[in-house]
Amino acid sequence: MSNIAAAIITIGDELLIGQVIDTNSAWIAKELNKMGIDVLRRVAVGDNKEAILQTLDAELGTASLVIITGGLGPTADDITKPLLNEYFGGNMVVNERVLEHVKSLFAKRNRPFVERNMKQAEVPDTCSILFNKMGTAPGMWFEKNGKVVIALPGVPFEMVSIMEDEALPRIKQQFFSDAIIHRSIITAGEGESFIADKIQDIEEALPAHIKLAYLPGAGMVRLRLTGRGADAVALENELNQWQSLFADRLGKIVVATEDIPIEAAVKKWFIKNQLTLGLAESCTGGYISHLITQFPGASNFFKGCIVCYHPDVKEQILGVHHTTIEKFGVVSEETATEMARGAISALKADYGFGITGLLSTGGESDRVPVGTVWMAVANEQKVKTKVFHFTYDRLRNKEMAMSMALLMIWRFINGIE
Amino acid sequence: MSNIAAAIITIGDELLIGQVIDTNSAWIAKELNKMGIDVLRRVAVGDNKEAILQTLDAELGTASLVIITGGLGPTADDITKPLLNEYFGGNMVVNERVLEHVKSLFAKRNRPFVERNMKQAEVPDTCSILFNKMGTAPGMWFEKNGKVVIALPGVPFEMVSIMEDEALPRIKQQFFSDAIIHRSIITAGEGESFIADKIQDIEEALPAHIKLAYLPGAGMVRLRLTGRGADAVALENELNQWQSLFADRLGKIVVATEDIPIEAAVKKWFIKNQLTLGLAESCTGGYISHLITQFPGASNFFKGCIVCYHPDVKEQILGVHHTTIEKFGVVSEETATEMARGAISALKADYGFGITGLLSTGGESDRVPVGTVWMAVANEQKVKTKVFHFTYDRLRNKEMAMSMALLMIWRFINGIE
Repeated sequence: MSNIAAAIITIGDELLIGQVIDTNSAWIAKELNKMGIDVLRRVAVGDNKEAILQTLDAELGTASLVIITGGLGPTADDITKPLLNEYFGGNMVVNERVLEHVKSLFAKRNRPFVERNMKQAEVPDTCSILFNKMGTAPGMWFEKNGKVVIALPGVPFEMVSIMEDEALPRIKQQFFSDAIIHRSIITAGEGESFIADKIQDIEEALPAHIKLAYLPGAGMVRLRLTGRGADAVALENELNQWQSLFADRLGKIVVATEDIPIEAAVKKWFIKNQLTLGLAESCTGGYISHLITQFPGASNFFKGCIVCYHPDVKEQILGVHHTTIEKFGVVSEETATEMARGAISALKADYGFGITGLLSTGGESDRVPVGTVWMAVANEQKVKTKVFHFTYDRLRNKEMAMSMALLMIWRFINGIE
Repeated sequence: MSNIAAAIITIGDELLIGQVIDTNSAWIAKELNKMGIDVLRRVAVGDNKEAILQTLDAELGTASLVIITGGLGPTADDITKPLLNEYFGGNMVVNERVLEHVKSLFAKRNRPFVERNMKQAEVPDTCSILFNKMGTAPGMWFEKNGKVVIALPGVPFEMVSIMEDEALPRIKQQFFSDAIIHRSIITAGEGESFIADKIQDIEEALPAHIKLAYLPGAGMVRLRLTGRGADAVALENELNQWQSLFADRLGKIVVATEDIPIEAAVKKWFIKNQLTLGLAESCTGGYISHLITQFPGASNFFKGCIVCYHPDVKEQILGVHHTTIEKFGVVSEETATEMARGAISALKADYGFGITGLLSTGGESDRVPVGTVWMAVANEQKVKTKVFHFTYDRLRNKEMAMSMALLMIWRFINGIE
């Protein structure tokens, strides 16, 4: 049982000095994986001819498919296209379809078409074009000794569009391989070691073609089963059985048996129960609300959020008592509780959540240590509060507070202490 | 003038199937770069012994410093530690300081210390320990033929903590190199080609030790100058001069002459002018508010945000007229305008911004095409509105709407049409 081996090369100095986080590779890897293609390596190199050539040679040594992103723009630091032209021994020619398209894009955007843009329409005559409807730089498909090299622009939505419309269907056609199927179990509240101990016997009984991986995150551990096999339907049944075994053993700490974030699990519950949620965020500044509205359909249960960054907003819109803030402070159990209740009344929601904290020095409160975050979740009948003391920097504290907030809402609605 | 060459290897199957986006590499690259160390390549490989060894060998062929992250946990899919033990020809021994620390962490978190955790305290006797105060897996520092290999856990905040406290100071001590200094110019509203044409003569006059790179993003292009030299002070002066030349030429499209996001440029303006801002977000769900509060000091100008996901919230808290919504629709110029004005009055702010749109199918409005987003920005005297028609998927539409919103606020306060 052998799969197609692939490699992903991302090009750009910005990746090597850390100014840009590479999201393209993860997206490409996921898509290839769904098709049953193994990504063996992902390599990032700078805008340097020698380094790119050396990497391309090395990856073509083991991979049958190499996908390159980046370095296709019209400016001086983009060198991938001439380099590939040389590598595959061709000549640069103007592609009429691409030229037409580039000109029309410039006209649509009311931009002058300058000499430099002409280059966007030039491609090596050794490749076939992967049309880029979203931008000016076309993708390119090269073949050599039965191996395929695909070059794509680095702008994420252009890359995605070309992959979906052009490259993936053609890759599917070109290669054949076994099915790879994943199953996930999302757990919350216990660590990796605890879980490993709890499921050790089941893990040891797994057949060779099914692998288990632990993906720990803030307050949560995601378990991923990966199975390979020629018969996709049989494999799916087999994986479903193993997934049930693990999930049953782990019991109450299982948040979901699909690869969804906790905000999606929260959404599912509210929609199923036809109830609504409203938030009052201070220190997290709208982050929780942003995540809850990432997926379509949030409007079916989510009323909204009062980001009460200034204390006045807590009082005037959420109805937090001035005396509460004076007596207990902005960051306190009492203020968080009145915020959660205020979210219910101001937003006319069935459930309310309030969060107030001091994520870093320089905040509005000096009555609590840096890192203190109070949360409260409530419905008409009851309220639950919790305090956290985060010890990282501002952004990581915010990240942690957001995770813990979603977890707290999820536990409250599921009646888990 | 030769710099220290480094490579970063990230280990984990999750990176190759795209379930996790690698932020560690960017962070490490940035820190090494600040010290004047060139990252030549970043490589991601799976939890596979052979692949890791082959990659390590290859990178040690060109790099003097290799930093490995991931694969140090206690579970079965983490194989880096035994592999490095073998690679450097050592024996696994229990490190007493680490054991002490691991036990204390478990006690603090009220978790039972199980047999499996004992392994966290075992390290090869060929390395020296990089203490991990944030977690259980210690970092390791190996040396071989004058080259350094550092292995770190993959959990981002643990990796960062070990790098900052232990690894970076030691790297600084071990290696010496030229200074590398960066200068940035952030522009908005024009494309890469337009800018390249406008500054071509200055770019061509750059000396060999100063490079210019274009980093395009949504609606913005970031220019980065990178200079190298033995004399850091002289280099800094030189770079400042070039930066001024470019910025003067680009004129009004320059948002900032430092590497800050647009939300930080907005914050600077409000604090300098001692004015306040309030938001009313519908389709972006709190995303803009989240970004504005990412940095400390937002409380000095940011009053808060009404995330009015449900139409009722628009009316009840922001005072949008029921007849406005009925007549023009939720996604309309009129609703956006009343939202911006409502943000000013409800949040008692000097400036208000309102955004309402339909990011994907299944939203609350069927009166406008998918992708339509109306924005309005206002102060007491005037209001400006704008409509966008985004054509991507939900998440990219949200991303674009957020970028355009911040840009619109920035242009409004700076009096740019």
